[in-house]
Parts: sequence; C-alpha cells; structure tokens
Amino acid sequence: MKIALAQLNIHVGNFEQNKAKIIAAIGQAEAQGAEIVLFSELSVCGYPSRDFLEFDHYIQLCESSVLEIAAHTKNIAAVVGAPARNPVKEGKDLYNAAYFLYDGKIQQVIHKTLLPTYDVFDEYRYFEPNKEFKTVQFKEQKIAVTVCEDIWNVGNDNPLYTVCPLDELRSEQPDFILNLSASPFSYKQHEERTKVIQANCQRYGIPMVYVNQVGAQTELVFDGGSIVADAQGNVVKRLSFFEEALEIIDTKDLVKANDVVPSEIERIHDALVLGIKDYFAKLGFSKAVLGLSGGVDSALVLYLAVQALGKGNVLSVLLPSHFSSSHSVEDSLALVKNLGSPHEVIEIEDCFQQYLTTLKPQFKDLPFGIAEENIQARVRGTLLMAMSNKFGYILLNTTNKSEAAVGYGTLYGDMCGGLAVLGDVYKTQIYDLCKFINRNTEIIPEHILTKAPSAELRPNQKDSDSLPDYDILDKVLFQYIEQRKGPVELVAMGFDEALVKRVLRMVNMNEWKRFQAAPILRVSPKAFGMGRRMPIEGRYLG
Amino acid sequence: MKIALAQLNIHVGNFEQNKAKIIAAIGQAEAQGAEIVLFSELSVCGYPSRDFLEFDHYIQLCESSVLEIAAHTKNIAAVVGAPARNPVKEGKDLYNAAYFLYDGKIQQVIHKTLLPTYDVFDEYRYFEPNKEFKTVQFKEQKIAVTVCEDIWNVGNDNPLYTVCPLDELRSEQPDFILNLSASPFSYKQHEERTKVIQANCQRYGIPMVYVNQVGAQTELVFDGGSIVADAQGNVVKRLSFFEEALEIIDTKDLVKANDVVPSEIERIHDALVLGIKDYFAKLGFSKAVLGLSGGVDSALVLYLAVQALGKGNVLSVLLPSHFSSSHSVEDSLALVKNLGSPHEVIEIEDCFQQYLTTLKPQFKDLPFGIAEENIQARVRGTLLMAMSNKFGYILLNTTNKSEAAVGYGTLYGDMCGGLAVLGDVYKTQIYDLCKFINRNTEIIPEHILTKAPSAELRPNQKDSDSLPDYDILDKVLFQYIEQRKGPVELVAMGFDEALVKRVLRMVNMNEWKRFQAAPILRVSPKAFGMGRRMPIEGRYLG
Repeated sequence: MKIALAQLNIHVGNFEQNKAKIIAAIGQAEAQGAEIVLFSELSVCGYPSRDFLEFDHYIQLCESSVLEIAAHTKNIAAVVGAPARNPVKEGKDLYNAAYFLYDGKIQQVIHKTLLPTYDVFDEYRYFEPNKEFKTVQFKEQKIAVTVCEDIWNVGNDNPLYTVCPLDELRSEQPDFILNLSASPFSYKQHEERTKVIQANCQRYGIPMVYVNQVGAQTELVFDGGSIVADAQGNVVKRLSFFEEALEIIDTKDLVKANDVVPSEIERIHDALVLGIKDYFAKLGFSKAVLGLSGGVDSALVLYLAVQALGKGNVLSVLLPSHFSSSHSVEDSLALVKNLGSPHEVIEIEDCFQQYLTTLKPQFKDLPFGIAEENIQARVRGTLLMAMSNKFGYILLNTTNKSEAAVGYGTLYGDMCGGLAVLGDVYKTQIYDLCKFINRNTEIIPEHILTKAPSAELRPNQKDSDSLPDYDILDKVLFQYIEQRKGPVELVAMGFDEALVKRVLRMVNMNEWKRFQAAPILRVSPKAFGMGRRMPIEGRYLG
Repeated sequence: MKIALAQLNIHVGNFEQNKAKIIAAIGQAEAQGAEIVLFSELSVCGYPSRDFLEFDHYIQLCESSVLEIAAHTKNIAAVVGAPARNPVKEGKDLYNAAYFLYDGKIQQVIHKTLLPTYDVFDEYRYFEPNKEFKTVQFKEQKIAVTVCEDIWNVGNDNPLYTVCPLDELRSEQPDFILNLSASPFSYKQHEERTKVIQANCQRYGIPMVYVNQVGAQTELVFDGGSIVADAQGNVVKRLSFFEEALEIIDTKDLVKANDVVPSEIERIHDALVLGIKDYFAKLGFSKAVLGLSGGVDSALVLYLAVQALGKGNVLSVLLPSHFSSSHSVEDSLALVKNLGSPHEVIEIEDCFQQYLTTLKPQFKDLPFGIAEENIQARVRGTLLMAMSNKFGYILLNTTNKSEAAVGYGTLYGDMCGGLAVLGDVYKTQIYDLCKFINRNTEIIPEHILTKAPSAELRPNQKDSDSLPDYDILDKVLFQYIEQRKGPVELVAMGFDEALVKRVLRMVNMNEWKRFQAAPILRVSPKAFGMGRRMPIEGRYLG
C-alpha cells in the first residue's frame, strides 16, 4: 500500500493555517499516487495545545476542521490527529485521537492509550486513556493505528505503563503500523525513537510508518525525522530533520536504506536555529536584538540568530562599561564583521553613574557590592528592552544552563529576553557548539573561545571567582538535573562533598530566579521550565 | 474514640522542622488524652513537594522521618502523610500515602486512590493510584482512612473519576472516616469542602475527622479550617483558618456546633496576609520593599504587608516623575502616616532623562511612545531592586489580575518583584478589599479609592484610555479565565462582540509576558501560573 508521510510544521491554535497545510498535503499525496496520507499527533490543533483544550470552543474548532479536511479525502485516506470528546460521563472529557478519514467522511476514531505525564508532558491533565482496541480495515489491509507513546511500551517492558496497545491488537494480525507522533527533540531522543520503532517492528513482524511533528512551539522543538521501518526493523526511509517534508513509500516494496543521521552537535545546532526561527515566525516577528558582551554565550546566540533570521535581521548592541576589557569590544566587532550583521554601541556608564547619584541618599557610602553589579546588568537590560520596544525587535536572552542552574545572572538584567536560546546548553557544550561552527572557517573569533569567562561587573572579575570550574560544575549539574542524583549518590560517584553541597544548594536556592526566566529552548531530556517543577520556598538541600 | 486534629504549618522539604512539629503535636495530643492524632496530607515532606519527589534521596528522607516519628507513638496512634514506594515494577514509582503509626511502628500504609491532575495539581505526574481497599483496625474500631481527593467522588457523582474509595470500604462497616488533606484556599473552596464532608457523612452514616494543611507554599495558601462532622453531616468542630491549631474531639460525644465562618472578603484578606507572611518566613527573609504609586493596588499591598510582617519591616518607596500627579505623593504620604511604616522618596526623572540622552543616537527624534513609558517603569524597577539587593528586602509586586490578564504592565518594570500579592485579585475586588479594610476607620485614604486609575507614564494618562472600564472588563475576564467560556458563549451571554474579541485577544497575546511574571498568591479557583498553562506562541483567538 502506498503511504505518504506528511511531516508538517503545525502551529498551535492556528486552525486556518494547519487546515490549509493538511489539505494541500492531501492533494499532493493524492497526485503522487498515495492511498493513505499520515499526519502527526494532534496535527489539526498543534501539540502541545495545553489548556486551550479546556475550552469547548477550541474543541469545536478541532471538530469542524476535521470535517473540512475529511471532505478532501474522496480518493485518498488521511489520518490526522485531533482531540475527540469522551461520550461517557466518567473520566476526562477528551481523548487524544487519530481520525481515519476516507470517502469524505470520518471512518474511524482511534484513541491514545498511553498518556505521558512526566517532564514536559501533561497529557493526563486533559485526556482519558483508551481501553478499547481495534485495527482499521482499509482496502483489504488491517492497520494498527497508534498515537505517539502507544508504541513506547514494547511488550510491557516500560515500567510506567501496564498496557501494551499493540499486544492488544496482535490477535487481529495487522499488516502494518501507523504512528502519529509529536515527539520533541532532545539530543538523544532520535536514537531512542529509532530503537523503539525497530523493537516494535521486530516484535510484531510488520512494518511501521511513523510521522513526527516538525517545528518549534516556544520551548519545545519538534525535530521531524519521520521514519519507515520494515518488518525486520530496518530503517527504509527517514525524512529530514527540522524541516517539512512529504514522501511516499510502498509497504509492499520496502528496501533497507543507508541511514545517515547528522551528528549530535549538528542536531543541537539545528534545533536551536529552528527554535529561534519558529518563535519569531509564530509570534509574527522578524527582527532580533541582543547584547553582545564579547563572551562566548552572546557570540553563539548571535551566530544562531543570524542563521535563523538572516544577518540583516539581527542587531547586536555592545554595551561596554568602564569595567569592560578592551577585548570585549574588539572581539564583538570582529564577530559582527565576520557575520555581516548590524551593530550599535551604547555606553552604559552615564546611566549607571546616574543611578548611583540618585541612590546616594539611601546607599550613602556603603561599599560597592552586588547591588551595584546588578544595576549595571539592569541598565543593559533596560537599554536593550528600549531598543526592542522602539523598533519592534524581540530581545534574545543569552543565559546558559550552567548560569541558570546556579543563579549566576541578574534578574531583570542579563536575564531579560523573550527567548532563552542557550538556557538548556551547559557552558562546556557551548564551546563544543562554537568549535562545530568554526570547523571550516573561523566565524567566532578564537579569542572569544580562549579567554576566561567573566561578567565584567567589577574590576578583573572572573566567573571562577564565584563558581567552580565549568568542567567540574557542569558534571555535577548534569548528574543532579538530568540524572536526578542526590547528594549521597554524587559523593559516592567521587565528587567532593563540600562542592556537591555548595552546588546543590545554589541550584535549589535559585528557583525563585528561574521562575521568572524567559522560556528556554529545550535540547536536553531535562530542561529548566515546564519539564522541571520545583517549589520556590522548598528547603530541600537549600 | 478521642482524636486530636493537628493542623500544622508544614514547610516543603524542611524535614527537620516538620518532624519536630509533628513529634511535638503527638506529645501534646497524648498529654491531653487523645488516642489518635491526625495530620495533614504529605505532612512529613509538605505539599506540594513537586519534582523533589523524583529524587530517591528525598524519598529516603521521608522514610527515615516516618520511622523517627513512629518511635513517638508508644501510647498514641498517629496518622501522618508521606510518599510510599510502589513495590511493583509497573506504574509510577510512588504512592501518596497515609501512615498509621502505633506502638512505635508503622502499622498500616493506606494509598491515595483519586489523584487530582488539573489546575495546580499534578499528582499523576508522581503517584500511582491505589486499587486496594481496607480499613484500619484500632482498639475495636474500624477506621476508613482517606487522603484528600479520595472523599471527592461521593457515590461516583464526580465525572473525573470512576472509583469511589469509601464505597469500596462500605462492606467493612467502618466506624468513622479520617481524612488527611492539603486543600488550598480559593474563595469558594471552604463551602465546597464542607458540602463534600457532609455528603460523605450522610451517605455512610458515620462521622468524619478532616485535617487540612495550613500555611502558604509560594502561590498556594492552605487555609486550614479542619473539620469534624457527625454521622448526620453536622459540623461539630471547625479549627481556625490560616493558623496552626491542635484540638481534640471524642467520636462518641459529638455535638453540633454553632459554625460561624469569616466572610468571603475576610478570608481573601487573611489568605493574602498569610501568603506574604509565609513566603518571607519560609525563604528566611523578614523585610519587604514596594513602590508606592498613590494608586489603590500598591496601597493595598502595603497594608497587607504591614499586617503580615509588621509596620517596621515594610519600606515604601515613592518614585515620582514629572508625569506624576501631586496627589500621588500626597495620598501615599497620608497612607504611610496612617500605617506608621517607613518610606523613602526617590525621584526617577534624572535616570529617565539619562536614558533618553544615552539612547538619542538610536531614538533620534522619534515621537514619545511605549518605549519611553516603559523606560520609566524600568527605572522604578531597577531602583526598587537596588534597594532590595543593598538592604536585603524582598520586593513585593503590586500587579492586579485585571492588568496581568490584558498585559497592562511593563515587564522588568512594574512587573518586578519576588511575589505578586494581588495577581489573582481583579481590580474590582481590590476596591472591595479596601472597603473591608476601611470598614471601621479610614486606613487607606479615601482619595486613593475614588480617583481614576492611572499608570502616570504620560501626561494625563488614564487606564480607561487603553482598557475597557474595569466593571465590564473584569466580568469578561472572569467568564473567560475562571469559567473558561469561549467567544461564542460570551456573546450569547450578552457581552459586546467587538469587546469580547478585543479582550480575549489581549489575554492570549500576553502569555509571553505572564510567563516571566512573579509567582502569584492564588485566591481564586483559576489563577495565572501553575494552574493555567497556555502556549505562548499559540494563535487561538490571538
């Protein structure tokens, strides 16, 4: 059977655009001879729709969209994702459903069984789990239609769940599996996903066609990379990552492909670029501004933003103070020259001094301290936001994950911005990304990569004055944040006890600051934000 | 049977303090002749512990605390709440459990069946639902031990759930019900709670002892008000709201009480005061600073903060500009005089002008606009944060719910602050609170309550220049936010179609701004924050 994979960049709540894209893809698939065209999970409304799902009007728009789409399936079947109402009084009001459309009508509705409710996922907040299992019959074929997580409990080996949907369908002897997914990017996710698809094909001895959503929804970057695997689990087709695609396969003619996948660092790079691009596009903006400090974080954000938005659309503002080293300006100028992007220089000294004058009656002759350091950062934040407000730029935040973790940043200062591009990228990973970018030519000036990191808010300040070396800090943070290892486990792994205590305390004491941070592009399995929910006033290790 | 209700202010993750409080209450209850002492839900670790629950070390601290507490139950039984590990591989790793302790040991562990996963609640993120039902036998009595939500599906009439835990226990003919709760305040919650308790007592013909957590955990204010109801559902005892209490009843001697409850407005007032008080206490701070504008919102925050922290601990900073009306300073001075609290005056004009000078090369002669308005708000934010950083104050945010809803506020300006005291209180409710506060004496100067609201960021500015009148705005917002009515329903209710479209668009377009807002004390059934999760880039009605 000829099946088209329609990997589309869906926009949450943008029904007109999603519908138009889906209908256009049905037309293309039909013109190319496909018998079925498969879309991603909740493709009609976008994933994650979050609490929009609690509005009856939103569900009505989903329903009317499905009917409009169905009208375009006279000669080709389409499988789209949309919520379905639960007709029974008991349980949640909705199902997360796949609609099998054909002959202009809804032929069958398949409900999702396994509802991820962890990390960034809140599906049990909205959806009732399915308990009835039936294949779809179409043109002499029996099709096992599954929704995303439904294939992630192969033979009940996933401790999270007690049902294996495909085991339930096994007695019907389905001919192949279709899966509608909205599986967000994280740097290891693609390997996990491929393994799970292969394990399913091997267990049931049938092929699978898996379509993933592509495009970013604020923090979550959906990487596409839709897959077809044969009955032995060989990958026979993989759609491109991070862009829309429509391709056709024939389940009767599957040939093992030479499956080449971009490297991990390249995928992180591409995820960040797409994250920026879609944040702007979906909010209807085209221009970014950022503060270029001469450090590695803002250099990397500038480079990524130029890739996402075009060099003419990213304004760098250099905001030197009298604590700034001479190279902070020189390195920044060299970078914008390499990229060909515009810049402004705005000195912060006069504004900073004016604050000190204004505050003199209160501050009197108290020594220079954190308050004065923060004023400088907030002057920068205010100047950048002024540029944003005056000229319609979105301010990009340049905080990295190591800083965000330990609270090494000024709230309302360098923590300003609409989107935190690097908030899920540790400092050590930032250097790796820069080396990747410089692999052929020196785009990011070498001196930016070799000098010691500094906030330059007091004379000769270095990050290492306040923080452990990033090499060791990032290792502790990774174990605590991504791996959820506690203090006893960390010490058992060989980390110094005092260091562990100090780092964990810094992380826990700064929940209040991260609470007000910009949304962070998620590239790891555990990013700050929706996927990590911590009490602000909790006193565990704090 | 003599049962003590121990309504304690538990601090999330503060095991040492929670344990000490619980052990002290056991001692007091025993000294007063109680046979059982009942605590609130997850009383050992605090509710909500959120993702702390994902740390094995955190669970170990819960377990060792339970054992330490058990050692104090030689002559009295204690029922405490703590997570319990799920020994089965399938399903979530934990149960939300009640531990029945006696004779120095854990006698029985009862698991929670109904796991709220909506609004601010994420229980299915962590816990496996219970499927086994058994009463506790103690001194010839059969006790039905339930955890919070377990009593909220009386006879299966709650559409969210399919199991009624007490129906499952009915055949054992329990003598009375114990319930451990962590039920956060919202202005109608106490009525709902009382009704549910009564309905349970009446359905099963037995008394119930219900202990609620008291105290605030950042956004969530637990109001206490623990209840004992007799077999007919009469309230025989109600512990005080918003403070710790320990009282004893005898299940064999229950007499209907004269149940007088504070008014709704008084409860909102008390919830806000406790919310401030506990935020400071649990973070280890004692002093607050806020910007006093002469408007009603900051006046109310000042009053509430003085109630919570004491008049000597709340510094008002008046931050006039040349757009400020003369009465903005006069009214503020009258208020601090009434309250006897300290104040400073810091003029923002010089800082504001310095920004305009610094930005002249970029802004050139472009007309005064939003950018310049926002600079003023951000100068105020920076000055207030400077005071906070220099002297160890926490900045209180004064944004109200109406403004937060429509995005009428400056991010990093008047949206600064560690805690948004009024972010869940509509503008119209703010006037009601002020009238309540002024019911005997004029504390908040009358002129603050009668003048037209204004941000005073440009000449003669009024809120009504940009927003519908608050009377009508708040009604639309309430229907959209609390009642989740969509545009069609709102028009059908009689609201003007253009107004509805405009207001809903404003709400949806400002998710990006609220994402970075301070945590908001929740007093309604639907507050901005954890309980309302909206896509930032979603285009539904936006």
